[in-house]
Amino acid sequence: MNLQNRMASDVATLQWVGGTNGYLQMIDQTLLPMEFREIECHDVETVWEAIKKLRVRGAPAIGIAAAYGVVIALQTGTGSERPDFDQRLTEAATYLAESRPTAVNLFWALDRLQNLAASLPTLSNAEMHARLLDEARRIEQEDLEMCHKIGEVGAELLSKGDGVLTHCNAGGLATSGGGTALAVFFEAARQGKEIHVYADETRPLLQGARLTTWELMRRSIPVTLITDSMAGWVMQEQKIQAVVTGADRIAANGDSANKIGTYSVALLASLHDIPFYIAAPSSTFDLSLTSGSQIPIEERLPEEITHGFGTQTAPVGVDVYNPAFDVTPAKYISGIITERGLIQPVTTEEVARVLSIDQD
Amino acid sequence: MNLQNRMASDVATLQWVGGTNGYLQMIDQTLLPMEFREIECHDVETVWEAIKKLRVRGAPAIGIAAAYGVVIALQTGTGSERPDFDQRLTEAATYLAESRPTAVNLFWALDRLQNLAASLPTLSNAEMHARLLDEARRIEQEDLEMCHKIGEVGAELLSKGDGVLTHCNAGGLATSGGGTALAVFFEAARQGKEIHVYADETRPLLQGARLTTWELMRRSIPVTLITDSMAGWVMQEQKIQAVVTGADRIAANGDSANKIGTYSVALLASLHDIPFYIAAPSSTFDLSLTSGSQIPIEERLPEEITHGFGTQTAPVGVDVYNPAFDVTPAKYISGIITERGLIQPVTTEEVARVLSIDQD
Repeated sequence: MNLQNRMASDVATLQWVGGTNGYLQMIDQTLLPMEFREIECHDVETVWEAIKKLRVRGAPAIGIAAAYGVVIALQTGTGSERPDFDQRLTEAATYLAESRPTAVNLFWALDRLQNLAASLPTLSNAEMHARLLDEARRIEQEDLEMCHKIGEVGAELLSKGDGVLTHCNAGGLATSGGGTALAVFFEAARQGKEIHVYADETRPLLQGARLTTWELMRRSIPVTLITDSMAGWVMQEQKIQAVVTGADRIAANGDSANKIGTYSVALLASLHDIPFYIAAPSSTFDLSLTSGSQIPIEERLPEEITHGFGTQTAPVGVDVYNPAFDVTPAKYISGIITERGLIQPVTTEEVARVLSIDQD
Repeated sequence: MNLQNRMASDVATLQWVGGTNGYLQMIDQTLLPMEFREIECHDVETVWEAIKKLRVRGAPAIGIAAAYGVVIALQTGTGSERPDFDQRLTEAATYLAESRPTAVNLFWALDRLQNLAASLPTLSNAEMHARLLDEARRIEQEDLEMCHKIGEVGAELLSKGDGVLTHCNAGGLATSGGGTALAVFFEAARQGKEIHVYADETRPLLQGARLTTWELMRRSIPVTLITDSMAGWVMQEQKIQAVVTGADRIAANGDSANKIGTYSVALLASLHDIPFYIAAPSSTFDLSLTSGSQIPIEERLPEEITHGFGTQTAPVGVDVYNPAFDVTPAKYISGIITERGLIQPVTTEEVARVLSIDQD
């Protein structure tokens, strides 16, 4: 299939097929943009593997995948006693939580299902299973609406003709909707602001080269691919008027963990007097952490760097450091774009205030 | 052949074999570290192609290669009149100068041969040809000594146990000797300073992953490979006490063109109060340029980014920006390490003063 010609509406990052005994279908994002293949998850191990291997990635999307993963885990043994059912729910959530350590949406979604089950102890297993599927669907639907609102809040920050830089992929592929950072660009383009996006390729896994460019091209938004090392130089050349990225976990003071390299981009933007924004749903905040130093940083395998794209490109046995994320201090973040509004300035007080705003 | 086990002295980046009718042998650096293959250049077109395709790269090394390329170009037709010989010399120099536009050492070496010929108009073609070969060999020999002196000057700047970051490859493979930035590390290690090198992989062509790690491992100097996007983060983690890179052209005020990404590394070092040094021979200075804005920046093919390592990793038809170099302003450079001494502070006056120092 010619991917370039697919309409945006043709592609669902992930979707549940059927009822409580259904399955989770998702795009295998490790194969994009050269191959479009959807995989079906009929057991929880397949969901775990898909999250671990980044077949599904992006903080909101892995939260949704994990929620459906719990539903799949509970498809067997529904005839047991309710405490056994709850025990298996806990085991599934614990198991799925270990797939990736940094994105808080994963734990947030799993907690939400566990809290729901704890609040409804008298339901039968089958009734509870159905309620959990409803809750997973609700998480997905809320995510869709969240993307739209983030787009609206963020588009206000861009001006006609702006060059904008993003890092990694915080697009529709990272969510069930239009994404977070990319939702801002999609909405700005829809409003006729004629933005031009510069996409960092985002080593080692090239989410920018593979996914962000693909999503923008499908929507006919001008995009130029650069290596991560060029971000500072295109700022110096005055090609960039704003930077917008996603986030995987945000502490109570606004310190934000996101894909490795985001920290450098934020500091470079600061030195060039370019505003640096994070776009993320409220579920990305972990208010139990007072600052970013408490966010665990996932380290991944050396082969992602030494054997990128199937080819060995470094000497055998070379030592490698491969943190998957870094933490950008709040002081370098001009604003955090959430579905509840813009957090600006980024302070503990303003984070608390905006997150407490009720949504309509 | 097991490259890891080769001794440093086994490998010559490039070497002239034979007399005036000899040829230039060089390592094909595009194949390292997975394959060690030497190529022989018997005609000037092969030299041009090797420079263009980065089979030989690094500012000092391409200057030497170009000088030998002129000797090869003059191997035919030495029976003609001397003005014809000089005309062919000019044509060869013009042709070779077009192989890559940024590194000034290329033009410096070619000018040196042309000036020598202009100064000896009465020699026969054969005598002139022999003198040109001597001059090319002298350029190579001076480069070897330059590397040693740069190592000595630079090693003074490092302390025992320092973590040091470098970008791209300014090693033995970029010169006829031990390199420029890497010569500093080699000398510091020889002095027992127990440094630990962090090597940026250096997209798109991965000179750091392929070449810098290889050179350091061969010399048993601890090296850790990171992606370019991690440079800022390892600084934040206090792993880095100094940054040293090479340069391809330096303006009279000290503004320095080097591999794309150097600008970002320099700015990030500045924000973390880490000294950022350039190591480069005096032949890298282009005093005809008052500032870095006058340095031409080579743009290379999009395929280097979209088809790295033989695999397509970006959508067909994506727009790409691929500048091969950027320019770091002098104000972000803590010092320039040359074979004539350390330029510090980096100002037009101090550049002029140090470059005028006679060498012993």
